[in-house]
Amino acid sequence: MNEVVISGVGSTKFGKHDGVTAIELATDASLQAIVESELDMNKIGAIYLGNFVSGFLTGQEVLAGLLADKLGISGVPATKVEGACASGGIAFKHACMAVLSGQCEAALAVGVEKMTHAKTSKVTQALNCALDHEADAASGLTYPGLFALVWQAHASLYGTSRKDVSEVIKKNRSNGLKNPLASMGKIVTAEDIEASPMIADPLRLYDCCPISDGSAAVVVTRADFAQNNKIAPTKIKASVQVSGRAKLAAHTNLCGFETTENAAKQAFENAGVKPADIDVVELHDCFSIAEIVDSEDMGFMSKGHGGGWVSEGRTQINGDLPINPSGGLEAKGHPVGATGLGQIYEVVHQLRGTHPNQVKNARIGMTHNLGGTGVSCTVNILAAE
Amino acid sequence: MNEVVISGVGSTKFGKHDGVTAIELATDASLQAIVESELDMNKIGAIYLGNFVSGFLTGQEVLAGLLADKLGISGVPATKVEGACASGGIAFKHACMAVLSGQCEAALAVGVEKMTHAKTSKVTQALNCALDHEADAASGLTYPGLFALVWQAHASLYGTSRKDVSEVIKKNRSNGLKNPLASMGKIVTAEDIEASPMIADPLRLYDCCPISDGSAAVVVTRADFAQNNKIAPTKIKASVQVSGRAKLAAHTNLCGFETTENAAKQAFENAGVKPADIDVVELHDCFSIAEIVDSEDMGFMSKGHGGGWVSEGRTQINGDLPINPSGGLEAKGHPVGATGLGQIYEVVHQLRGTHPNQVKNARIGMTHNLGGTGVSCTVNILAAE
Repeated sequence: MNEVVISGVGSTKFGKHDGVTAIELATDASLQAIVESELDMNKIGAIYLGNFVSGFLTGQEVLAGLLADKLGISGVPATKVEGACASGGIAFKHACMAVLSGQCEAALAVGVEKMTHAKTSKVTQALNCALDHEADAASGLTYPGLFALVWQAHASLYGTSRKDVSEVIKKNRSNGLKNPLASMGKIVTAEDIEASPMIADPLRLYDCCPISDGSAAVVVTRADFAQNNKIAPTKIKASVQVSGRAKLAAHTNLCGFETTENAAKQAFENAGVKPADIDVVELHDCFSIAEIVDSEDMGFMSKGHGGGWVSEGRTQINGDLPINPSGGLEAKGHPVGATGLGQIYEVVHQLRGTHPNQVKNARIGMTHNLGGTGVSCTVNILAAE
Repeated sequence: MNEVVISGVGSTKFGKHDGVTAIELATDASLQAIVESELDMNKIGAIYLGNFVSGFLTGQEVLAGLLADKLGISGVPATKVEGACASGGIAFKHACMAVLSGQCEAALAVGVEKMTHAKTSKVTQALNCALDHEADAASGLTYPGLFALVWQAHASLYGTSRKDVSEVIKKNRSNGLKNPLASMGKIVTAEDIEASPMIADPLRLYDCCPISDGSAAVVVTRADFAQNNKIAPTKIKASVQVSGRAKLAAHTNLCGFETTENAAKQAFENAGVKPADIDVVELHDCFSIAEIVDSEDMGFMSKGHGGGWVSEGRTQINGDLPINPSGGLEAKGHPVGATGLGQIYEVVHQLRGTHPNQVKNARIGMTHNLGGTGVSCTVNILAAE
């Protein structure tokens, strides 16, 4: 996919945006990305908007068409795409497809979610829209419950401890302190974590990413359109989307997600690189245990060694493989539809050398965006040149 | 777009499906389409599922991934697309793109909606998710109100009468009688219509399409994959998607929809045919007046003459330009996300010569699927060979 590049990125802060609509957030992020891309607005030939539960939480659908209108390019094909928490990654994949297929020379991918205005119980119902209602939802499961099961399975098979998992939280919250887009940066101790309320044993409050508002956007263009830009474009070496089984009972084991394994394997193959070639990763730590599981599923270490890597500091900003130097979902927040594009925003800045938590000599970066309990997944491999 | 063809179509009846989930409906329609296509299931390389308000009305999202799982092809990229009432048409467009771009050799487009289980007031709220909440919704408008304004504007400028509009209803309801997929086929008189309850002046109950459940599906393949099929494939001469302004105040006039004009113009250009070349049309008669307005916007007659055409019987099955021989949304029903694919199902059967209301010598057909008050629109031109 070397003929398609990222020529601009934009993002609002992830957190609480009172009195602002999803469309206003999406417009803000989109305009940033378009300005960076140095494109005339009317060169944008397609809009893909990733969003999960705007209908459920705000009663507003057709966000993609409304955004086109706000940007003054009404007429352009504008599509909302949804695949639970991977909606943002799916939007990016489709912007790439639109340019690759020759349908247009530039496309806008934007993700957005507005959640903090709603009651927590309503947000829990909204997030449960990603469960298979014929299976898991009927069992009374919620996402904290599901990831608690994952941790229990991982602990039972590999001995993954509270201490290992707390290291994920300490790292990500600390990384978030320097990221202006993160709302939950903080120095956290193991004692703070262990004293926080139990949510679903063994998950405590600190193990869960916060409910958030926010938007992120990426402009994808034909490489020749961006070759003389002030900001060097970022190469897209692979952009992969896969689906997977939603219901937990159908998973071969609870210690990982087959969708992540499939997507990462395809991405490495398409990009022609190995896990050891990756300099920086932004991955889907919706819960602290997810970071460990995801990093194993992506093939960075063998199964059961993710906890050891984080405990040994190997995933710190200056470690062997920096994971979530942005602070991840835990410290940035998780405005569902925006998350996949927020990850791309972070990795693009790493590859440009302009990240507040810059990884030294970052040349190849990777993003991983997981929907539900693996019902959808997108993985991207991006490169500085 | 001659290298991509339709090799299979499927549809449930549109109407009331008690105790059946959206996924079950979508699976039914999908399997019919896949069987017709003579493809091994694992040749399906992408799924696009058009749906509007499943989250809002049933609390179930991630329908595309759940469908992939049900079909036993979990792993395949599976994406829900949304653009209000045009969601089904958008799904078809993306299945075409996936094959055209070489991402896969066959793709499944399916549309589905489950609505009849919900209270009418809740369905009204759901449909209002397609309004621009910063503009029209705040004015207290609903869709019957909006189309009542369209009729009033059309009547005031062109004198379009109750009699003209009633002819649309009489024709479509009568066409529906012979269509096994239509739930509202009926012989209706002008008196019946005029005696039905007023909904939003001048719209009466008979002017409004019913709330419905249903699903329709289409398999799109590379032409060489289907060349030896028992059922001759249908050519896709054009598949166009555009966006437009949602808010009514931004429309240049209320007598038509710019999005329809744009989409139809592009489709004729891409297909290299003229309005006069079209043998049969399925268009978006969400309200009776919409059929008149849409047929004008598509360029079949000049503005203001749509009412005359229907009154003179020129849009009957044996007329100059048969419109909605299926019965349209009025007689079939309007399971929102399914409608655009249901229209393609009907036109494909016309072009195969297997329609229950067969148009004589139908060689080129057209579909038109409109979202909201023009926020999105898709138009397709299909050909028998």
